[in-house]
Amino acid sequence: MEPMTAYSQRVLDCGKSPIAYLMEQGVENADVISLAAGLVDQESLPVEMVRAAVERVLSNHAEGCAALQYGTTEGDRRLRELLVDHLARLDGCAPAEIGLHPERIIVGTGSQQLLYLVGEILLNPGDLVLMGVPGYFVYMGALESLGAKVVPIETDIDGLIPEAVDEQLATLERQGELARVKLIYDVSYFNNPTGWSLSAARRRELVAVARRWSKRQRIYILEDAAYRELRYSGSDLPSMLRFDPSGEQVLYAGTFSKPLSPGLKTGYLVAPAELISPLVYQKGHHDFGSSNFTHRILAELLASGDYMRHLDRLRQIYGAKLALMLRTLTDGLAELDGEVAWTQPEGGLYVWLKTPARVSAAHDSTFFRRCLESGVLFVPGEYCYPRSHAAAGRQFVRLSFGVQPPERIREGVERFCRVLAELAR
Amino acid sequence: MEPMTAYSQRVLDCGKSPIAYLMEQGVENADVISLAAGLVDQESLPVEMVRAAVERVLSNHAEGCAALQYGTTEGDRRLRELLVDHLARLDGCAPAEIGLHPERIIVGTGSQQLLYLVGEILLNPGDLVLMGVPGYFVYMGALESLGAKVVPIETDIDGLIPEAVDEQLATLERQGELARVKLIYDVSYFNNPTGWSLSAARRRELVAVARRWSKRQRIYILEDAAYRELRYSGSDLPSMLRFDPSGEQVLYAGTFSKPLSPGLKTGYLVAPAELISPLVYQKGHHDFGSSNFTHRILAELLASGDYMRHLDRLRQIYGAKLALMLRTLTDGLAELDGEVAWTQPEGGLYVWLKTPARVSAAHDSTFFRRCLESGVLFVPGEYCYPRSHAAAGRQFVRLSFGVQPPERIREGVERFCRVLAELAR
Repeated sequence: MEPMTAYSQRVLDCGKSPIAYLMEQGVENADVISLAAGLVDQESLPVEMVRAAVERVLSNHAEGCAALQYGTTEGDRRLRELLVDHLARLDGCAPAEIGLHPERIIVGTGSQQLLYLVGEILLNPGDLVLMGVPGYFVYMGALESLGAKVVPIETDIDGLIPEAVDEQLATLERQGELARVKLIYDVSYFNNPTGWSLSAARRRELVAVARRWSKRQRIYILEDAAYRELRYSGSDLPSMLRFDPSGEQVLYAGTFSKPLSPGLKTGYLVAPAELISPLVYQKGHHDFGSSNFTHRILAELLASGDYMRHLDRLRQIYGAKLALMLRTLTDGLAELDGEVAWTQPEGGLYVWLKTPARVSAAHDSTFFRRCLESGVLFVPGEYCYPRSHAAAGRQFVRLSFGVQPPERIREGVERFCRVLAELAR
Repeated sequence: MEPMTAYSQRVLDCGKSPIAYLMEQGVENADVISLAAGLVDQESLPVEMVRAAVERVLSNHAEGCAALQYGTTEGDRRLRELLVDHLARLDGCAPAEIGLHPERIIVGTGSQQLLYLVGEILLNPGDLVLMGVPGYFVYMGALESLGAKVVPIETDIDGLIPEAVDEQLATLERQGELARVKLIYDVSYFNNPTGWSLSAARRRELVAVARRWSKRQRIYILEDAAYRELRYSGSDLPSMLRFDPSGEQVLYAGTFSKPLSPGLKTGYLVAPAELISPLVYQKGHHDFGSSNFTHRILAELLASGDYMRHLDRLRQIYGAKLALMLRTLTDGLAELDGEVAWTQPEGGLYVWLKTPARVSAAHDSTFFRRCLESGVLFVPGEYCYPRSHAAAGRQFVRLSFGVQPPERIREGVERFCRVLAELAR
């Protein structure tokens, strides 16, 4: 008999990745316009800026050598200093007002790695993470792979509802499960998939709720700010760090992937001081540090002001693409007036749409299949719920205007609308 | 009462990192010459080559954009194709002879990430990994953090001893523990810390032993070839992939960190086909792909031949530094003739030295402290053994000639020899 591979339990427990499924669909159908992919706008990627930054990093031999040598596990010091200034500027305050300093920052392989590491240092199998739903499905999968359970919390146009968190925690206390709650996770700016942001008032309230329920053990808030800098209208909201001057309660994850370049694959995390050592230690097991060369390039882009200049340009481009997607939906679904609803986000990369009750948008639905046949791919809303609550998402669709150029957005959305109008008739 | 942080069990289980301890020693003593650090030679880092490669990647706008976009979780396709050719060339055969194709390769954030992922997909707490000792302490720590147990196996100048593996497996079978053995790990070229390589005959034998003992479950061999390309004399040895034409038994981890640039932080893994999906899936949780930009740079360096040209130069530089370290040891320890022994490696970055019986080289020894006071730092040999066997390493020292320039190697080794000669007197 042939020997079998004895996989670890974490492999045996895992389901099929929704992303892998969607990518297969996209790859097998070359004419398909993917409004599913979370990729960024391709044409506007900052080729010349990165080129110039690399030139500055490598033009001096000694500095070039330092960039090509190992860095530290926590990431380049200058980059972390520049991030302190950058974040304080975004929040319109001095770093000291929110207890920000470079020792509270870790740089990683995208913010994804840092989200995963937070899970690793806090969660044992069976532990609970509260998360607004619909929510970021990649992190749901990562948390489940760590054996944690996602407890879904209601959200609305102002984001996660603090009263719902409060009630859920009260329920868990009555059930004797409060000690298993370690984390409240929220994509607090232009949530993936809804595009909704957590209002300023709710930010304050959410921090207060987390603090109040941190009885025996600390219940941390993990604020995922991946889309913060992609705002096309309205004004910026304070981060939850602003409401946590002691620096004990809130972790803040940011990334250069969405607002600059995913190819540089770099994210960062601000964490309470006591979590830094375990995070660095665990990252030491994973890779003992991300690419030092990339960190130096990013430091150059921040220091020179190129990063902020690029953002200004990007906001124009995405703003126009978002407007085009919304306009095309309005035109294409006019005959279904009032029966289909979708969000009107002020930023981010996604529009969240609700189909009429008689049209399911699940991955095994007629609608999803007909869309594929008509050459357009979307993320079925059910993927944005924990597996145990997938049914709640069957009437929802996530559409991204990130990667496709304007003419493909229009064409893709038109195909989508035609299929939907036909099925809803 | 203040709430406490409820860390996960994996944090609570971890000890103090030996590397962190050594780095603190180095940082707190600025005049110290570190012969401990595993960093690479700084002056020879390929600044101009990387600069030119980046220029080629970014000079065309469309290709530049593609490089700055997300890549795939398994890594850039062209880089994986070039790695197939590169590895086949090293092994002097056609890719097909060893079943090599791009779908068997994953690119990661250094080979460390890939070693860690292998652990994650195969090991449950309590599972066993056979490893030659003394061995690579960073991976021992990573395995322990996964709850696995390192079973030490004897090594000598020809590397891991297959008969010792065979005997250990027979013992484990008698004890009813064979089903817990998942992996045999070996740094098969210029082992860290001994500098010894696994002989060709033993490579064949080791693969046969692993195959023979793969009864119910497969016992994989994980060949860590991090130092393979850093050979300064003698001729290359076949990889263990050569003795596994079915491609079922051997995993091969390589890296660009040691032979090119650790700042680019890129490694690669050849794995049996059936392990690829779980590895990619798990990497998806960690980061869904390393830096695509870096992959494109490395593909350019491989395709242009710059990588091989750089290696030729590097071999000269390290060969001279190794010779200098060995010569300085011979001169400095002449009066202890026969009482101190050290390895004469043909490559890699390390020399492994045994002190006289009356001189302990443990981290809390007089010798270690006096060396620090005299301005030289080494890795205490005990760190290169599993914690349960640390005592076996108390008379050993790992010296690295990687990062220090020649004059600092000479000065550092002279300081080391003076302290040793004094204590051994």
